[in-house]
Amino acid sequence: MKKTKTSHDKLWGNAFTESPEKLMMEFTSSHDVYPINPADSVLIPYDIKQNIAQVKMLYKQKILNKKEHNNLLEGLNQLYGLWEKGEFVLDPMLEDVHTNIENWLSKKYGIDVGGKIHTGRSRNDQVVTDMYLYLHDQIQYTIKSIQLLNKSLYKSAKKYQDTICPGYTHHQHAVVTSLGLILHSFNISFKRDIKGLQDLAQKYNYSPLGSGVGYGTLINIDPTFSAKELGFERKFKNPIDVISNRGEFEAALAFQICQFLNHASSLAQTFILFSTTEFGFLKLADHYSTGSSAMPQKKNPDALELIKSTASVANSNVSALMQITKGNLIGYNRDTQETKHIVYHLLSKVELIPKILSGIIETITVFPKVLENQANKGFINSLGLMEMIINETGLPMRKAKILIELSIKKSVENGFSDKVDFISFKEAQQLSGIICDISEESFYVWQDANFQFNQLDFNY
Amino acid sequence: MKKTKTSHDKLWGNAFTESPEKLMMEFTSSHDVYPINPADSVLIPYDIKQNIAQVKMLYKQKILNKKEHNNLLEGLNQLYGLWEKGEFVLDPMLEDVHTNIENWLSKKYGIDVGGKIHTGRSRNDQVVTDMYLYLHDQIQYTIKSIQLLNKSLYKSAKKYQDTICPGYTHHQHAVVTSLGLILHSFNISFKRDIKGLQDLAQKYNYSPLGSGVGYGTLINIDPTFSAKELGFERKFKNPIDVISNRGEFEAALAFQICQFLNHASSLAQTFILFSTTEFGFLKLADHYSTGSSAMPQKKNPDALELIKSTASVANSNVSALMQITKGNLIGYNRDTQETKHIVYHLLSKVELIPKILSGIIETITVFPKVLENQANKGFINSLGLMEMIINETGLPMRKAKILIELSIKKSVENGFSDKVDFISFKEAQQLSGIICDISEESFYVWQDANFQFNQLDFNY
Amino acid sequence: MKKTKTSHDKLWGNAFTESPEKLMMEFTSSHDVYPINPADSVLIPYDIKQNIAQVKMLYKQKILNKKEHNNLLEGLNQLYGLWEKGEFVLDPMLEDVHTNIENWLSKKYGIDVGGKIHTGRSRNDQVVTDMYLYLHDQIQYTIKSIQLLNKSLYKSAKKYQDTICPGYTHHQHAVVTSLGLILHSFNISFKRDIKGLQDLAQKYNYSPLGSGVGYGTLINIDPTFSAKELGFERKFKNPIDVISNRGEFEAALAFQICQFLNHASSLAQTFILFSTTEFGFLKLADHYSTGSSAMPQKKNPDALELIKSTASVANSNVSALMQITKGNLIGYNRDTQETKHIVYHLLSKVELIPKILSGIIETITVFPKVLENQANKGFINSLGLMEMIINETGLPMRKAKILIELSIKKSVENGFSDKVDFISFKEAQQLSGIICDISEESFYVWQDANFQFNQLDFNY
Amino acid sequence: MKKTKTSHDKLWGNAFTESPEKLMMEFTSSHDVYPINPADSVLIPYDIKQNIAQVKMLYKQKILNKKEHNNLLEGLNQLYGLWEKGEFVLDPMLEDVHTNIENWLSKKYGIDVGGKIHTGRSRNDQVVTDMYLYLHDQIQYTIKSIQLLNKSLYKSAKKYQDTICPGYTHHQHAVVTSLGLILHSFNISFKRDIKGLQDLAQKYNYSPLGSGVGYGTLINIDPTFSAKELGFERKFKNPIDVISNRGEFEAALAFQICQFLNHASSLAQTFILFSTTEFGFLKLADHYSTGSSAMPQKKNPDALELIKSTASVANSNVSALMQITKGNLIGYNRDTQETKHIVYHLLSKVELIPKILSGIIETITVFPKVLENQANKGFINSLGLMEMIINETGLPMRKAKILIELSIKKSVENGFSDKVDFISFKEAQQLSGIICDISEESFYVWQDANFQFNQLDFNY
Repeated sequence: MKKTKTSHDKLWGNAFTESPEKLMMEFTSSHDVYPINPADSVLIPYDIKQNIAQVKMLYKQKILNKKEHNNLLEGLNQLYGLWEKGEFVLDPMLEDVHTNIENWLSKKYGIDVGGKIHTGRSRNDQVVTDMYLYLHDQIQYTIKSIQLLNKSLYKSAKKYQDTICPGYTHHQHAVVTSLGLILHSFNISFKRDIKGLQDLAQKYNYSPLGSGVGYGTLINIDPTFSAKELGFERKFKNPIDVISNRGEFEAALAFQICQFLNHASSLAQTFILFSTTEFGFLKLADHYSTGSSAMPQKKNPDALELIKSTASVANSNVSALMQITKGNLIGYNRDTQETKHIVYHLLSKVELIPKILSGIIETITVFPKVLENQANKGFINSLGLMEMIINETGLPMRKAKILIELSIKKSVENGFSDKVDFISFKEAQQLSGIICDISEESFYVWQDANFQFNQLDFNY
Repeated sequence: MKKTKTSHDKLWGNAFTESPEKLMMEFTSSHDVYPINPADSVLIPYDIKQNIAQVKMLYKQKILNKKEHNNLLEGLNQLYGLWEKGEFVLDPMLEDVHTNIENWLSKKYGIDVGGKIHTGRSRNDQVVTDMYLYLHDQIQYTIKSIQLLNKSLYKSAKKYQDTICPGYTHHQHAVVTSLGLILHSFNISFKRDIKGLQDLAQKYNYSPLGSGVGYGTLINIDPTFSAKELGFERKFKNPIDVISNRGEFEAALAFQICQFLNHASSLAQTFILFSTTEFGFLKLADHYSTGSSAMPQKKNPDALELIKSTASVANSNVSALMQITKGNLIGYNRDTQETKHIVYHLLSKVELIPKILSGIIETITVFPKVLENQANKGFINSLGLMEMIINETGLPMRKAKILIELSIKKSVENGFSDKVDFISFKEAQQLSGIICDISEESFYVWQDANFQFNQLDFNY
Repeated sequence: MKKTKTSHDKLWGNAFTESPEKLMMEFTSSHDVYPINPADSVLIPYDIKQNIAQVKMLYKQKILNKKEHNNLLEGLNQLYGLWEKGEFVLDPMLEDVHTNIENWLSKKYGIDVGGKIHTGRSRNDQVVTDMYLYLHDQIQYTIKSIQLLNKSLYKSAKKYQDTICPGYTHHQHAVVTSLGLILHSFNISFKRDIKGLQDLAQKYNYSPLGSGVGYGTLINIDPTFSAKELGFERKFKNPIDVISNRGEFEAALAFQICQFLNHASSLAQTFILFSTTEFGFLKLADHYSTGSSAMPQKKNPDALELIKSTASVANSNVSALMQITKGNLIGYNRDTQETKHIVYHLLSKVELIPKILSGIIETITVFPKVLENQANKGFINSLGLMEMIINETGLPMRKAKILIELSIKKSVENGFSDKVDFISFKEAQQLSGIICDISEESFYVWQDANFQFNQLDFNY
Repeated sequence: MKKTKTSHDKLWGNAFTESPEKLMMEFTSSHDVYPINPADSVLIPYDIKQNIAQVKMLYKQKILNKKEHNNLLEGLNQLYGLWEKGEFVLDPMLEDVHTNIENWLSKKYGIDVGGKIHTGRSRNDQVVTDMYLYLHDQIQYTIKSIQLLNKSLYKSAKKYQDTICPGYTHHQHAVVTSLGLILHSFNISFKRDIKGLQDLAQKYNYSPLGSGVGYGTLINIDPTFSAKELGFERKFKNPIDVISNRGEFEAALAFQICQFLNHASSLAQTFILFSTTEFGFLKLADHYSTGSSAMPQKKNPDALELIKSTASVANSNVSALMQITKGNLIGYNRDTQETKHIVYHLLSKVELIPKILSGIIETITVFPKVLENQANKGFINSLGLMEMIINETGLPMRKAKILIELSIKKSVENGFSDKVDFISFKEAQQLSGIICDISEESFYVWQDANFQFNQLDFNY
């Protein structure tokens, strides 16, 4: 859809060795300069699919005769073909996708044929059915995208399995870990997101079609038949429930998407910090960075930043979806129409994120020396030292902690800032009366980041 | 916990035949005049339970000897007994529940015993473990409460199965339905909420204990053993994932609670409207109403109104929980401590709602005559009439709709406001050229609310 | 922009005497079938305006010579003309509005001229300046729209000044009031919204131009000069503050819009309820109603419902805007780019609401008899009765209340449901020992809605 | 309220040279171990104040006689004294603060006196009046707190006026700035927050007292008199507006608090990053840090982290407050009672934040060498170089940018990573054909951080 222009046209780029990834540019500047499609345009294939099931059901129920059935199916298939070729565009004069399609059929086969397709149906159950089809498709698509992202993560987690690195709490050095274990943690978080998506696919696996305006219909329809045609496990259980709760499935999906984005935003922030000049742990590939209109040197992690803001937008979308449906009188309320737009805008925004993250992860350059250096700084290995002391001497944990705390205080006074000093450790023993008889050699070996990391046993 | 005072002390109540339900008063005015317990006080039994598992694990791993193990278990069981009797109260000088318990043990058995209990553990995994235990308990409690509410709903849905009633869309008369079907719709919505809660119980069925500060420990612990002791299916898969995502389970549960509250708030609003003077469909029992400080006649649906505001609070809590965890650097961040308070306040607010709703539903007085009367007003039966015409004459739906629309326009011109008039129907046929040959008798029978409702077939 | 089609094409409408208002259709179905414009397209005139100020400033500072200055101003004016005629459309290949305009100039006058316009400026201060210009314009536009709405409200408030009507609390009859006073209350609420908007116009009355990437510039620019050219009171006070807080003005405006929408949504809900069959207080004009795809009789208050959902969307937008800017490192972060889209979508959604509300208010049909009837129902006049007793007898309020409460209880037992019964009143006196000697005539006069309303004195 | 215990009781602290600040401990662990006061307890002095005004007004209106007036004033003053000494505690049996106070008076002076105080008033206007008094007090308190914080900021901004430091965009080195200018930016942001608070104080400067249940009263009260007694500018303009919009002032204040917290959270995050081992720009004082239960070396910025989560909570509170009041029928609805709790919890959480931030700012240790070193790294001075070239040679900005971009690309190829290399600059000229004749000396001087910073001219 978009091509990157040469550098004289753009305001930046001459310091880059590679052009920005096409999909990244699409993600970062899209709606600044491209319009957002009408919401109903995304429903076209689902409305056609639903109409096909509707026609088959009406025929089975003898509400359509063979010829009407054949005409309408032929028309709907033709329409689908047109849509695939981009030749079926919504006429805004005709209010919505449903009217557009019914009118197209009526124009082609006459109102006596086209005018029968909506029998026993209302726009209320029609649009909810379209949305359910769309949302289920989006769930499957998202699951697949996250699985691909997880492949990249797993590959990188294995690659950096032994790349030791500071583990942080409160943004401060806590204990030694590996870059691989960090990446693997996201793999596990994302797996939980996939599980959440699968739960939703199962929770909302029923067809809304046949609930009518929200209270059923006097027409002799067969909602179980159309449920099967549409690939649902079963039909709705109560027509009022289905229609009153328009927006519920949307909200549940938006929430799960938001959980995914929260995990993604934590990955984003971690990479943003790790790639600052000050951390210097890694570098994003040029084609996953963007430049500045003024500063010639800039290579910015814009995509990662926008993932964070998308997480905020998703959060607010969940809230909006739940607000709209709160405290309404039973039955359909037009308020809920807005839910279509909210979930569609969110899903279209999120679509590219797993791919972009995947691309970023696969193309980072890591600086293991810098990481290892930091993994030996700021008394980061004190907890490990304390635990080795406990392991080897049986000193009660709480006493061991007091002892090491005092040793650190002494070490700082004696001019040390990275490792606990053995002499200070001795002083601390005297001071506290907590005695711990270990060799100087062990004392320093136990504080080594590599030594500590090798004691840990994480398989993945 | 609270008693209702006689009416001279209270500012209202002399027009009531029954006193307000105790739990309703607790729900409606509680935090105006009662303090909110410290968050950690709710964690006491869970922290004790965790410590018991921890002691058993440390003993199995030979980090505690038999005597230490016995002492600590004895102490923890004694503590549990004290807590049950309300005799173990947190000392605010001691920062949190964890320190309170460890100190209690150290005071009793000496630091050489008590000071070992935290070996291989951090407050980071400790508090997440406490929270997981608490949240899982709350899930089971909430499932049971909603199941009880659903029993009331089902019973009432059967009771009012044939109590016909207007079905609404856009707050306007749409088609006929029954009060039973409306109540049943909430039963189905709540069942979906139970399913959602069960999904969460399964999704987060792993033990955080052993993830330490977030990167494991050099102590030779056995997290799988303690996971089983605590009743979890398995241990965590990645220690960073567990600790970084503190607040995720909280958010997921808050969201599911919010979905429940949204359904509840729709029920609340429906009852609020149905019990206005203007609707007059039903009346809340006196003991589920509250009065006014000024107006002597008032019997207000305060509990129902507060359910709606609680839904809004829950919505905002979900948002806060997700905001706090968004875009954080990997590892523990203190920001997430706030998640404990948010979810605790929410859960304590929600606790009584299923019971109160249940009580309200079981004690309403319904006025079937008023309902039936309205179910024949405002052309509400036009869709049914149209569908009967389609059923009986095979007129294409779209033509039938045009015909009835015109008939209504004519009927209004001719002074009718509730049912379509037969003469107007004839005029509309002439005007539109859409001919429909049916008898006057059928025409009116088909518009009868009872007739229409009997054509529908909803089993529950 | 949109035309309403004849009724054979649309799925409803034959029961309507007037076609739906064009702007209402635009409001209700717009983004289903129309695309949303790219966000930057709305910034075109503001970016041109800014560039004109920039050119004048650079010339004054001798960074541009006379010819360059003349060329660029000529070009920018020409561009403005093209834009007014709809002939300047953004080229999506060129990233954003800023690049589009600079490139257009460079193409026309060469890079040696066009390439100077961005001197001493960054896209960071450029986009914030565009947004400030846009937001200030929107504030003025919104103030004017609400003032027009307030004229309609005031006119109607006067018209229905004496149309007595039940006043509600908790959705229950409370005391008598007038429809005029209700309408006037919205007039006052909206005035406060206007005040809030004016406060914002004053709070953010400074020019961001010259803050550069966020830390100023080494180029000898004159931000005070350009501030004046752009119509701002003064220049920014600290460049970091301006750029770091991108999104703050947006959030503040969104919040104020949300307050307006909350007031509007309360008006909407009040009208929705008042126009139900059950209340029957008023009727919306046909051209402010919409129909159903299935139910021939429906005339729904869709616009009012969508105002409520827009209030929810606005609420969530405020939250998103604040989330995005929370906890960021000082300086520009790309996360904040999303703020442009959020506020633009919100403002474009809200634009029509004051007009639609105004139209609705001016075209309602009110049924004063129904209102007056309800204003005498459900013991609604008990507080007034109590207050008249206090006025006339000096009975302490608390005693008077007990007495009337008991009188109501007795009246209900004696079969009354609307007014307190005099005999019951006597019984209550005996029962309570609270004596109150008034005539039967006064007793009933004081309960009359018209009498009570006439005692009140509200001028507007 | 809280004392810090010696280190054997607490789980950390022996590595600290100073004990944590008392108010910081209060802020960080308070509601874990201390209960939250009942919401109405905070309203006691305001309810007394209101009752005093009410008594004076009722006396002026001859509804109370002199003796009643004297009794009630005496009682209220006595009550105020009791409250100041902590001896007036709410009895939870008595529903709320209003009932507690009225009952206390009636018990003391009899129902014939105490029972008159509520004449012409409802709990609806009473509680809104209490809240307005409370909120206005909180506004003044918050303004003062932020002013004090701003003094610390200004002092530090002056102190570090010339401490050069990297300026960031996208978390990447952008251009040189000073730590002073960064601190000053927060001073300016907070000033805007103060302005916002002042605007609110003015916007809501009217008395709700006299609006009764929401529709006025038949009692001959004088709301203008009581407005003045309570210190308001005027009385309400429409009683329905006041009561229906309960929660609006709360929301407006919460929003302004949230804006303040967003600024504070940005300061917090900046300090959190600047004090990481990797940045090493500054160190928090020990008494503004907290330790770990396991890691002996930890000194964590917990207070700063909790400021960020409080910003998230505030955000969600704004949303809740607006949700609760959305789409309600005109008149009082109990839903809005929840607004009291929300705003009270928020304000009590926020209370300490300005003080804590102030304390943190005044006690940081800054490492200017590290800052200066980073201000010369990562081509950070390229924009300054480019601007100096423009200043001195008149090269069009766009060409200068292309030239420097290419020079950086070449410099990287030639092994440079911090400053643009002169030979690479020459190569870039040849490559691009953009000629720029400047001396090698200027070229390097212009890239010096100190040189660049001295060109800038920021006065504060």
